Amino acid sequence: MAPAGAKRNILQRLDAGEIVIGDGGFVFALEKRGYVKAGPWTPEAAAEHPEAVRQLHREFLRAGSNVMQTFTFYASDDKLENRGNAQRFTGAQINEAACDLAREVANEGDAMVAGGVSQTPSYLSCKSEDEVKGIFKKQLDVFVKKNVDFLIAEYFEHVEEAEWAVQVLKTSGKPVCASLCIGPDGDLNGVSPGDCAVRLVKAGANVVGINCHFDPMTCVKTVKMMKAGVERAGLKAHYMVQPLAYHTPDCNCQGFIDLPEFPFALEPRILTRWDMHKYAREAFSVGIRFIGGCCGFEPYHIRAVAEELATERGYLPAASEKHGNWGAGLEMHTKPWVRARARRDYWENLKPASGRPTCPSMSTPDSWGVTKGHADLMQHKEATSQDELKPLFEKSKASH
Amino acid sequence: MAPAGAKRNILQRLDAGEIVIGDGGFVFALEKRGYVKAGPWTPEAAAEHPEAVRQLHREFLRAGSNVMQTFTFYASDDKLENRGNAQRFTGAQINEAACDLAREVANEGDAMVAGGVSQTPSYLSCKSEDEVKGIFKKQLDVFVKKNVDFLIAEYFEHVEEAEWAVQVLKTSGKPVCASLCIGPDGDLNGVSPGDCAVRLVKAGANVVGINCHFDPMTCVKTVKMMKAGVERAGLKAHYMVQPLAYHTPDCNCQGFIDLPEFPFALEPRILTRWDMHKYAREAFSVGIRFIGGCCGFEPYHIRAVAEELATERGYLPAASEKHGNWGAGLEMHTKPWVRARARRDYWENLKPASGRPTCPSMSTPDSWGVTKGHADLMQHKEATSQDELKPLFEKSKASH
Amino acid sequence: MAPAGAKRNILQRLDAGEIVIGDGGFVFALEKRGYVKAGPWTPEAAAEHPEAVRQLHREFLRAGSNVMQTFTFYASDDKLENRGNAQRFTGAQINEAACDLAREVANEGDAMVAGGVSQTPSYLSCKSEDEVKGIFKKQLDVFVKKNVDFLIAEYFEHVEEAEWAVQVLKTSGKPVCASLCIGPDGDLNGVSPGDCAVRLVKAGANVVGINCHFDPMTCVKTVKMMKAGVERAGLKAHYMVQPLAYHTPDCNCQGFIDLPEFPFALEPRILTRWDMHKYAREAFSVGIRFIGGCCGFEPYHIRAVAEELATERGYLPAASEKHGNWGAGLEMHTKPWVRARARRDYWENLKPASGRPTCPSMSTPDSWGVTKGHADLMQHKEATSQDELKPLFEKSKASH
Amino acid sequence: MAPAGAKRNILQRLDAGEIVIGDGGFVFALEKRGYVKAGPWTPEAAAEHPEAVRQLHREFLRAGSNVMQTFTFYASDDKLENRGNAQRFTGAQINEAACDLAREVANEGDAMVAGGVSQTPSYLSCKSEDEVKGIFKKQLDVFVKKNVDFLIAEYFEHVEEAEWAVQVLKTSGKPVCASLCIGPDGDLNGVSPGDCAVRLVKAGANVVGINCHFDPMTCVKTVKMMKAGVERAGLKAHYMVQPLAYHTPDCNCQGFIDLPEFPFALEPRILTRWDMHKYAREAFSVGIRFIGGCCGFEPYHIRAVAEELATERGYLPAASEKHGNWGAGLEMHTKPWVRARARRDYWENLKPASGRPTCPSMSTPDSWGVTKGHADLMQHKEATSQDELKPLFEKSKASH
Repeated sequence: MAPAGAKRNILQRLDAGEIVIGDGGFVFALEKRGYVKAGPWTPEAAAEHPEAVRQLHREFLRAGSNVMQTFTFYASDDKLENRGNAQRFTGAQINEAACDLAREVANEGDAMVAGGVSQTPSYLSCKSEDEVKGIFKKQLDVFVKKNVDFLIAEYFEHVEEAEWAVQVLKTSGKPVCASLCIGPDGDLNGVSPGDCAVRLVKAGANVVGINCHFDPMTCVKTVKMMKAGVERAGLKAHYMVQPLAYHTPDCNCQGFIDLPEFPFALEPRILTRWDMHKYAREAFSVGIRFIGGCCGFEPYHIRAVAEELATERGYLPAASEKHGNWGAGLEMHTKPWVRARARRDYWENLKPASGRPTCPSMSTPDSWGVTKGHADLMQHKEATSQDELKPLFEKSKASH
Repeated sequence: MAPAGAKRNILQRLDAGEIVIGDGGFVFALEKRGYVKAGPWTPEAAAEHPEAVRQLHREFLRAGSNVMQTFTFYASDDKLENRGNAQRFTGAQINEAACDLAREVANEGDAMVAGGVSQTPSYLSCKSEDEVKGIFKKQLDVFVKKNVDFLIAEYFEHVEEAEWAVQVLKTSGKPVCASLCIGPDGDLNGVSPGDCAVRLVKAGANVVGINCHFDPMTCVKTVKMMKAGVERAGLKAHYMVQPLAYHTPDCNCQGFIDLPEFPFALEPRILTRWDMHKYAREAFSVGIRFIGGCCGFEPYHIRAVAEELATERGYLPAASEKHGNWGAGLEMHTKPWVRARARRDYWENLKPASGRPTCPSMSTPDSWGVTKGHADLMQHKEATSQDELKPLFEKSKASH
Repeated sequence: MAPAGAKRNILQRLDAGEIVIGDGGFVFALEKRGYVKAGPWTPEAAAEHPEAVRQLHREFLRAGSNVMQTFTFYASDDKLENRGNAQRFTGAQINEAACDLAREVANEGDAMVAGGVSQTPSYLSCKSEDEVKGIFKKQLDVFVKKNVDFLIAEYFEHVEEAEWAVQVLKTSGKPVCASLCIGPDGDLNGVSPGDCAVRLVKAGANVVGINCHFDPMTCVKTVKMMKAGVERAGLKAHYMVQPLAYHTPDCNCQGFIDLPEFPFALEPRILTRWDMHKYAREAFSVGIRFIGGCCGFEPYHIRAVAEELATERGYLPAASEKHGNWGAGLEMHTKPWVRARARRDYWENLKPASGRPTCPSMSTPDSWGVTKGHADLMQHKEATSQDELKPLFEKSKASH
Repeated sequence: MAPAGAKRNILQRLDAGEIVIGDGGFVFALEKRGYVKAGPWTPEAAAEHPEAVRQLHREFLRAGSNVMQTFTFYASDDKLENRGNAQRFTGAQINEAACDLAREVANEGDAMVAGGVSQTPSYLSCKSEDEVKGIFKKQLDVFVKKNVDFLIAEYFEHVEEAEWAVQVLKTSGKPVCASLCIGPDGDLNGVSPGDCAVRLVKAGANVVGINCHFDPMTCVKTVKMMKAGVERAGLKAHYMVQPLAYHTPDCNCQGFIDLPEFPFALEPRILTRWDMHKYAREAFSVGIRFIGGCCGFEPYHIRAVAEELATERGYLPAASEKHGNWGAGLEMHTKPWVRARARRDYWENLKPASGRPTCPSMSTPDSWGVTKGHADLMQHKEATSQDELKPLFEKSKASH
């Protein structure tokens, strides 16, 4: 399936203009499979249920992923504290187990292992730069020992913390990717996507981009803004995007976490495989070459990305063996009206119904901002309360 | 987690008034994981990628399933013919591999192995009763050899074929369940659910019910009609239900296959875990005791069924270790408005948005019936075509 | 515009196979114009603001109505009592003023005057047959004095009261129409539409049918059931339908009054003119020949009915002078993409958006039935409350 | 009903901090009543059917309007040419009749007469400034002869043409309002709302603002931008807003004309009276004091504006006599669950359903911009057509 030859690292691929396909979000996928607890979101399953993690790696590999990201999200020591079952394993145990699983599966195909760090409670609670960097360093030590192929600092809401992470990861000499979970409005301090990107490149990131929190088109748009910022600054970088597999047109600046449906009722928002074709095409067309997924992505979503870009990559993923071209598998269906669906324009133009007629199509995000707005509105409302108007109504009636 | 003691078979459990939780639909789950091809829908993965099938069994076991159904859907010899990759394995190979996987995982917990047969192309192409029964017999031979605990004849649109299947399966001496994929309008020949149930019980089925094709509430309603029929006839049976995990209020009599979204754009219809609580409660309250799932069910859906019925069963499933009670895992979230979601009434009353404002909430099913209706309507429309009315419009204008 | 010749009464027209077009609902239209109070819904405007009532009659005449129904809805003496402003006029004053206005405008075109009575508080409060009939008699006296052309007993939820009304109206010797506000489930005592129709015909009604409470297609379906009942009974009648101009697929048996949006938030449900074409065609095709409207119908809705049936009637209404054929008025628009809308198939196939992404497409009706159902459900819910499950969760955690 | 005393002109009222309530859109309201043709949208009804125009004026007066706008939209001579029936009357006839009707009704209450001009075909076809100004001058001559109270230049998409209109109208010495039909993106040449407002004030407008094309909240937001621009420039003005009564969250820069539903399927977008309360409050709170409506506004919408601002104005409109306070008219309903709707928080929080489950909640606007975007997308799509991918699928299959 994949081109023959020695396995090359991510910068060799990106410098050569190749497309690198990422994997999907392990935390959400494994929550649905019963191995991750929503709330803590910690990855102790790497040590606790390795067969489940290994299988998910394999499915993404089969779907076309070139990157096996170590299942080390929120696996920093400060995050693992006080997190229930996660405490049965040390941080080092979890990080090492995750590296071994990723390597085992990466070796089964054309994939690289990426060690990942993410935002820390230490930063949020205003610990010093040294303390926060110490947290990242502990995870990095495992990644170096296990000799991962490259590193990703991802899911940062504050560009400053991401810079610190990049600076630590750079000490390893390995390629470093940096990915924020922000939208077009910038990071939580209001630093614009363009400025964030410039700061990350200056901190040493080889690849910059966005992951999680927003739907694919919003993430691609944000990476486009990052790219424009980097180019305006006369710098050079590669770009990555790993969005949600949920439609989130109703998000505010803090992303899907503020949607009322997060995290247990997001089902109606899940992208179809055909939505993924549009995403992959759009990401490619704005110049992003590391294209993957985050929360909500299942193996078939990644396969759709790989199928959309099959011409550019020159091959289809292994799992396409179990997938017809644009629904072609339906060609032999017994019902003629189902056979009629075995074509590209059918699926591309379909507007899928929710089957939920009592549900809306958009929500109002929860958050203090909105709450505050409501409070203001409430005050206005009080100004013309029912009781106050009554005499006017009486007057109106009387005068006729 | 589960009550101690020797493993008992399904009739012992149902006769004792216990709840038996089924598993979810392997065909759809494994399609998303990259191991089953939509269209043929054949289960060669049992032989081809056993690790993927084993892992899915394990997830359902962990989620609370008491039944490991052999992954033998559409594994009859007549169906496997001309089905691409499936042909690399004999029917016997696939059926045997499926039995071994189910047994291996069943032995890891409190689960029984159920050998499954489903409707055949032979029946649809009007082969004789003997020929069709011969097809079932070949699969049964494997199940007997592998000593499954009980048998399920499922996914039949014609009660007659289901009767034949039951008659064959009964020869084994093992308990037999029979499950049709019909709705309240009855089978494709118009036999009512009540009459279907009576015929299946008379054919020897110990448990009768519904699987696939319709959403949970519709399936429960149909089983209720079956139960009423059986009771009216003075017969006795147990009842089962294994519905879709998709909302399908817009289905016609042939179920979700006629929905325009089938099978590649059903995402917005996927039930949440909270929808599953309602389903499990409703199924239990109408007297159904074998409660599981079919297409669309993922492990977390089965876990929700098990959690809803935890009081009645006296225990929670293993996977609840990774799940807070009604979202309780959110209690420690840093954002207060997310913490506020850690409660039952929040999730029970939430109307989840689709994030798809340009999509409708219901579709019009494709099918000849509807198409015919449209054709009739079209004729009416022709009767007052634009050209015909023009002179009248001219006249109207002139007369004023 | 209309065929020349002496004005004929309704039975002459219907017996000759002609289409009689009714008018729209005055109560709702005049509420929006500021002359009727929602809640009481009384028609004192006939005496109080005659210019407003006259103008609305004129608009319906211009739109194609052949029937000027006197604005005497809820104008029985028992209803007018305790109804605020309505008390400034006697029942006789209101009924007489309404007759005069209807006659004045009817004489301006090809229309008949129909005197209307509707259900009474007396019946609901279990007054005797004589008392209820006395109420109808007082209104009839006015209609006879003012020499209306025919009579309509409409908006009855109990067929018994409608029978009494018909019996009273028949004493005048004028043609009598009887119209119930029920759906396919029958009247509020559960008498089926077919049986209701038979009873009304036997009571003396010349025309029977349905008005108000449900959307056009539901009303047409119900009249079809009435017609089948009359024909099964070997009787003969003409048929009428005057539905809502609101889409109400989510109604229960009591119609749109139980919808949460009634009566002040029904806007998103208003039918387009193109919906009215479909309604008119469907009504005609099932054999209904007196086709009009009720609450929500504006003059342009009636014009759409008249335009759909223009070929059958042989002429267009006066108001079509201000209306292009299927949107043809857009042909000269400056923007080419708006010009492209000047065609029948565009408007017929358009699925109009609500512009309300946070609103659902269906509601759950309020009513005791539903409330009771919820109460039952609530009990189940209590059975697995959060507190009860907690020990099980603890147990689950402990056991791993 | 209204405060006694001599009638004051608009500037006296606005300078005194009073609220001036406008009327609704005559063109759309009279189209539904059968007197205006969609497409041409000309106001010949003023001469042709004066009773219909007079009645609509009266309803708005009764609803609380302080402004009777002459029904002279598109009544410039260049627009009336080639417009069918409109040609039966001269421009002067139509404009004079409109002035007489407005004056007649204004004299019945506390209302002023405003003469209105709107954008011209002459400007769009690039006629000279003198020629365009000549067109406005002809209408102004009528307004001066009929002695209207003030003037409104409204519905301009290009600020330049609006400036010319203001300059002509100013020659009369009467107060001049200028109102553009643009959104936050500015006029069709991209001049921002703030800059448009500054230019209009400099041209002599006393009141500046927005009418038509967008929903209330969008229009209020745009006026807010105009106000900010005027204040930044150190100028002074009063502000007006007369928006659509349609929800248009899916509009692009050209407003509702580009929505697929324009103009014959906008029904599901119509604002409820409760939406109007929110609009009136918001307009007032940003400092707008001339608050009215445009297309889609019916008398009850204006009444809702007047009721929301009743405390500030000190009185309710006449039509409130037929309206309970926040639905209070339902208090005496027979069904308890309908009585329960007689309260403010019920209606304020209701999310009204469309009753249209097969329709979306948002549309994609038609327009060259979008069409062009689609064309670009189409090209991408061609790049990975079905035929091109087939060999890759074959290859994938072969390699396994």
